[in-house]
Amino acid sequence: MRIRYGMVGGGPGAFIGEVHRMAASLDGEIELVAGAFSANPSKSREHGERLGLPAERTYVRYQDMAQREASLPADERIHFVSIVTPNHLHFDIAQTFLEAGFHIVCDKPLTNTVEEAETLCRLASEREAVFAVTYNYSGYPMVKQARALCADAALGEIRRVAVEYTQGWLSTRLEAEGHKQAEWRTDPARAGVAGALGDIGTHAEHLSRYVTGLDLQALCAELTTFVPGRRLEDDAHLLLRFEGGARGTLSASQISVGEENRLSLRVYGTRASLEWRQQEAETLLLRHRDRPTEVYRRGHPYLAPAARHAARLPSGHPEGFIEAFANLYRAAGRAITARDTGARRDPLDLDFPTVQDGAHGVHFVHRAVESGQTGGWVDATYTLPGTTRLAAE
Amino acid sequence: MRIRYGMVGGGPGAFIGEVHRMAASLDGEIELVAGAFSANPSKSREHGERLGLPAERTYVRYQDMAQREASLPADERIHFVSIVTPNHLHFDIAQTFLEAGFHIVCDKPLTNTVEEAETLCRLASEREAVFAVTYNYSGYPMVKQARALCADAALGEIRRVAVEYTQGWLSTRLEAEGHKQAEWRTDPARAGVAGALGDIGTHAEHLSRYVTGLDLQALCAELTTFVPGRRLEDDAHLLLRFEGGARGTLSASQISVGEENRLSLRVYGTRASLEWRQQEAETLLLRHRDRPTEVYRRGHPYLAPAARHAARLPSGHPEGFIEAFANLYRAAGRAITARDTGARRDPLDLDFPTVQDGAHGVHFVHRAVESGQTGGWVDATYTLPGTTRLAAE
Amino acid sequence: MRIRYGMVGGGPGAFIGEVHRMAASLDGEIELVAGAFSANPSKSREHGERLGLPAERTYVRYQDMAQREASLPADERIHFVSIVTPNHLHFDIAQTFLEAGFHIVCDKPLTNTVEEAETLCRLASEREAVFAVTYNYSGYPMVKQARALCADAALGEIRRVAVEYTQGWLSTRLEAEGHKQAEWRTDPARAGVAGALGDIGTHAEHLSRYVTGLDLQALCAELTTFVPGRRLEDDAHLLLRFEGGARGTLSASQISVGEENRLSLRVYGTRASLEWRQQEAETLLLRHRDRPTEVYRRGHPYLAPAARHAARLPSGHPEGFIEAFANLYRAAGRAITARDTGARRDPLDLDFPTVQDGAHGVHFVHRAVESGQTGGWVDATYTLPGTTRLAAE
Amino acid sequence: MRIRYGMVGGGPGAFIGEVHRMAASLDGEIELVAGAFSANPSKSREHGERLGLPAERTYVRYQDMAQREASLPADERIHFVSIVTPNHLHFDIAQTFLEAGFHIVCDKPLTNTVEEAETLCRLASEREAVFAVTYNYSGYPMVKQARALCADAALGEIRRVAVEYTQGWLSTRLEAEGHKQAEWRTDPARAGVAGALGDIGTHAEHLSRYVTGLDLQALCAELTTFVPGRRLEDDAHLLLRFEGGARGTLSASQISVGEENRLSLRVYGTRASLEWRQQEAETLLLRHRDRPTEVYRRGHPYLAPAARHAARLPSGHPEGFIEAFANLYRAAGRAITARDTGARRDPLDLDFPTVQDGAHGVHFVHRAVESGQTGGWVDATYTLPGTTRLAAE
Repeated sequence: MRIRYGMVGGGPGAFIGEVHRMAASLDGEIELVAGAFSANPSKSREHGERLGLPAERTYVRYQDMAQREASLPADERIHFVSIVTPNHLHFDIAQTFLEAGFHIVCDKPLTNTVEEAETLCRLASEREAVFAVTYNYSGYPMVKQARALCADAALGEIRRVAVEYTQGWLSTRLEAEGHKQAEWRTDPARAGVAGALGDIGTHAEHLSRYVTGLDLQALCAELTTFVPGRRLEDDAHLLLRFEGGARGTLSASQISVGEENRLSLRVYGTRASLEWRQQEAETLLLRHRDRPTEVYRRGHPYLAPAARHAARLPSGHPEGFIEAFANLYRAAGRAITARDTGARRDPLDLDFPTVQDGAHGVHFVHRAVESGQTGGWVDATYTLPGTTRLAAE
Repeated sequence: MRIRYGMVGGGPGAFIGEVHRMAASLDGEIELVAGAFSANPSKSREHGERLGLPAERTYVRYQDMAQREASLPADERIHFVSIVTPNHLHFDIAQTFLEAGFHIVCDKPLTNTVEEAETLCRLASEREAVFAVTYNYSGYPMVKQARALCADAALGEIRRVAVEYTQGWLSTRLEAEGHKQAEWRTDPARAGVAGALGDIGTHAEHLSRYVTGLDLQALCAELTTFVPGRRLEDDAHLLLRFEGGARGTLSASQISVGEENRLSLRVYGTRASLEWRQQEAETLLLRHRDRPTEVYRRGHPYLAPAARHAARLPSGHPEGFIEAFANLYRAAGRAITARDTGARRDPLDLDFPTVQDGAHGVHFVHRAVESGQTGGWVDATYTLPGTTRLAAE
Repeated sequence: MRIRYGMVGGGPGAFIGEVHRMAASLDGEIELVAGAFSANPSKSREHGERLGLPAERTYVRYQDMAQREASLPADERIHFVSIVTPNHLHFDIAQTFLEAGFHIVCDKPLTNTVEEAETLCRLASEREAVFAVTYNYSGYPMVKQARALCADAALGEIRRVAVEYTQGWLSTRLEAEGHKQAEWRTDPARAGVAGALGDIGTHAEHLSRYVTGLDLQALCAELTTFVPGRRLEDDAHLLLRFEGGARGTLSASQISVGEENRLSLRVYGTRASLEWRQQEAETLLLRHRDRPTEVYRRGHPYLAPAARHAARLPSGHPEGFIEAFANLYRAAGRAITARDTGARRDPLDLDFPTVQDGAHGVHFVHRAVESGQTGGWVDATYTLPGTTRLAAE
Repeated sequence: MRIRYGMVGGGPGAFIGEVHRMAASLDGEIELVAGAFSANPSKSREHGERLGLPAERTYVRYQDMAQREASLPADERIHFVSIVTPNHLHFDIAQTFLEAGFHIVCDKPLTNTVEEAETLCRLASEREAVFAVTYNYSGYPMVKQARALCADAALGEIRRVAVEYTQGWLSTRLEAEGHKQAEWRTDPARAGVAGALGDIGTHAEHLSRYVTGLDLQALCAELTTFVPGRRLEDDAHLLLRFEGGARGTLSASQISVGEENRLSLRVYGTRASLEWRQQEAETLLLRHRDRPTEVYRRGHPYLAPAARHAARLPSGHPEGFIEAFANLYRAAGRAITARDTGARRDPLDLDFPTVQDGAHGVHFVHRAVESGQTGGWVDATYTLPGTTRLAAE
């Protein structure tokens, strides 16, 4: 069964929309058949045309798309919608499509308030919808290997986590120069309560939680806005306490001149430690106490099933960002098939970040902002309302 | 205009067929609509089905495919065929489709004899066909940057070239254990006169020629078959002389245990030198005589047009093998559009390895084998028959 | 003039004593002529003998050494003493030798209280003694290059500093297994108020201050003791605020399994950023906003005078820890010659960390401990008593 | 017992003389007590003075040094001479000191003819002299680890060796600009029959032989002189055949712009492969067929005895070129003690390159030059005259 989807947002010039489309279609299992790419009618139409969509399935208002797609025959209408708009629109769009009976893939941060995120969790649960949130870095095979090593206690008990996501592209006031991506990301009305934290810090938080399985207990944040005139923080550094006693640090910065997308994770246990960096995404270092460091590489038979399952090419032919992103889409697509057909799938096929992960992220960002404002430690534990049921899902 | 293609070969289990399909479709400009995936009828049919092709366009014999596709209306039939079979079949298939009026994308080495390669050059020229040969490593943005730096004389006059493509996967006699990829690659009847040289050495040769623009003048090769029972060399090391006086070394080895796909190129000029390695494909080092080494990275505005044009993602989000391969397909697709519609395209859109490059490669492999057998230097200059006309193309 | 010195501490098995001796003698300008290597008379004597010292200049009590050396003719007695004992002894020894008229090279942390550190500052100033503290990492040529780049505003205005010194060797309770180095470092009576912070965190603090020239304003620390039974923290993470508004993070950890001596510094400015790591000590990365990253390497003419002056070998022949340490000794030795002879020296010859840097470090450690205990931000500004006069020194 | 030595050559401005002195004295076991630093009397005298030598032991003519030192009391005179002059002088000096009863440490290439090298072998044997040749790269701990891994068959049977030593400093005609180091190295009268090969190629040859234990059987060389006006080759590339069937490549180039001292070695066996690079001298990669690559690092207990024995610092505090060089001196010094006192030493203490290694190197260079001139394969087997006896040493 080929999965059909529509996209909201991702019009001309939106880098991330293009990434979503390449990722979704990479394996030939998912097909773009509809879209509301822009609130500007002619832009949306032209974009749809460029993508080879029939005119009648290129929409301007997402509400129309939800309504009309729902009215199409089951073998024609979209299975899910992919939401790639600025943050403040996620909630309304997701709610609309959930209520219209569709599955969802939504960009992060999921929503601009915790309440909205929890509403989506509840709705998704009620509607039995598959709801993926694009914490795409968890799609890298070697990140999955890292998670497997932690789960297998290869590291022993975890003591220390160091995660970082830093960039330099917002080191000047790009938003004042007509740079659209910079504009909405630095605008509280659209980006929400946070800048760097919401845009990339939430990726770092998810990555560390995904790999270690540890929940946060408390955090202490230092948020700074370096670029004059900017209204949201562009640099954030956090001290973290995890349940069970592990300690951590998290840095998210967009004024780190010269950094491209420096996402890295290190986890130190009582027996061994691991290090992964997006810039060398195919490599995972496992450092031991008393024998040589091991260099795990994507594509080898010695890897954990989750890491092998997430790879497409032989080792040494580099995979990258799109393949990692595609893993998320592929898993969401297969989960949708499973949900809709009742077929059973290998759990390896269903490994993607969910609406609950999205809620976790929104909660994290809000607590970090609170800590940054008060200048001290704040509680960061989070229990999703109705978690019991969701966990059983 | 969306380009349609059919595939010959690339049935179940053939890694490279899957790569070709992901690469061809990545940008949404090229669509798979037909295929003769296997000589086994049921395998070919099932494979076509899995790929979503209608039954009537899944063929068993490529001859039937050529004939029937040619009989379809112009807006339905394939524009080109992608040939991903073992080497010994390339020639017949390519000739058949050229004669049936189609464009071609063909795997390397192009053919098993120089004569066949030259016949294809002639035919492509006569038929005014676009004919790409998948020297896919030239699709990497930083390889294009390397080429631009050489062309701009950033290195000064080139003195030394060191190119290497080494792997370890054939360090044991896999071909005796039912490993299909190993079987045909080590079988003279299918692989041709050479093993490692034809499979990967030809990539190294093309990469160095593509980047430096230098033609070979002479070579001295040492070919060795290390694995007992194997019939083709699995390890090759060459001394090279280029026209103009530059010197070089080329290593192609498939018994280099522990190497994944170690493809690297270094070029030393009178003023600067460069180094690129597939394993860190996003990085190009430019070493200067009297100032700090520069690290060129994919995705930056400071790059040459060809390198910028070949990138899809922001710097720091790794691209890889598939994107490089996709660049070849995209360029071939656009060249086909230009040829068929008469539209003019930016030369940047048309940068792909051609049938002439393929002939160069076949010639190189044969001369290397000759040198290996005689144990000394051999002439390696090569002038394609009818080059003048082809160059004007 | 060859400089003569005596050593206190550094007996058999003390790794750091051996390092000091190799470093001091590397350039042939400084000579070991006396020592009180151990409180155990026979150990001290044997050690002195092994080092080729005459019996009459191998002492047991450092007090005897100070007194007797002071009584020797000027062309025979030591110029300075090198103090390489556990921390708690530094103060008494340094005070004794200062009062006896000698110059000092002392290990870090300088003392166990701020008051002691300030006393030594005052004494050194009164006696016009040269007093070096072995913040040896500032001796690396590429660290000096980093400092020069900051001073020249190559980075623009500094916004962010990330410094880290992490190790794994104390991840188990080595101190309970008779490991002498571990024993005193984890014993509050000998190590002082801090564990990891005093042992390596103070190096990180000095390194960042040396390179950036920025003073601390406030800090917020999280100190943890992971190894059961241990009495001092073995893991510390700090948020930093610098005067002028820059932000920073500092990690010092000795339970980071698999890390050897991971000392790294990154500094981000408005124009460029730099990164240095001890593990690749010969390399300094300078990342720009709009052109390729530059790789500065030790030994090249393009480096700043301070970096060139600190190098002994051609680029590409690796220098390391001992040479960096030797730079500190060489500068201290030359400062002593200058002080004692009144000769003028090039400022490049006199670049070493001083007793004031030592006091800074002690103050930093105490504030970090205070923050760790109170769990919040504390003031971290520090003005040395009598700084005006010392600065004029 | 402290070992005393004198130096011939190494006057003002001679980089390598300074290196020898730092290396010799690093461990406090060897002391410089005499020298004939320059044929220019005042230069030699001033240099000796600068080094703290008494005037009567600073010589102008090495012959005088040999004669007078031999006449001194046994507990005063030098034990060995260190010869750091240009190549053409090595033979006469070494012969003179051997005949005067001294041990020798001599720079490479040992001599300018094979006959001279063999004469020195014979003389050393007759005189029972310790004779070290400064193939200093074999002093790196991780090179010794590589050798131990090969000896332990961790790699299985060796199939392929790739060794390279490339530099860029002679990419222009420095010798015409008064650059002394360049002058004699490019002058056949002083450097001998080869340029790059004699200066650095011989290091590469020794390194590969030291690590693998394999002897050469045949070679095919391409030698080029790129810089106009230069009289010796500045670029050399060789194909190698080893006894037992292994194949190899060796590159030595001094016109490789941007390379500092790129010395690297890779060895591929049937089971595993290793890679070492001087630029990251503390790391040795061991790549396996079916498990993660291992990163061996200097300073760890898991290393082979020879590698542990050759280290001075904890892992992570970088050691470098001087320490490697010092290992050679320390071993030679201990061998001298053993020879002179009859004491037994651990074989680990006696691991240094000998006069026989030096003869091997000279033979290798001559055969490579012969091959370069004739343009084909030449026999490269070498059996030292009287090897049996020497081997029993």
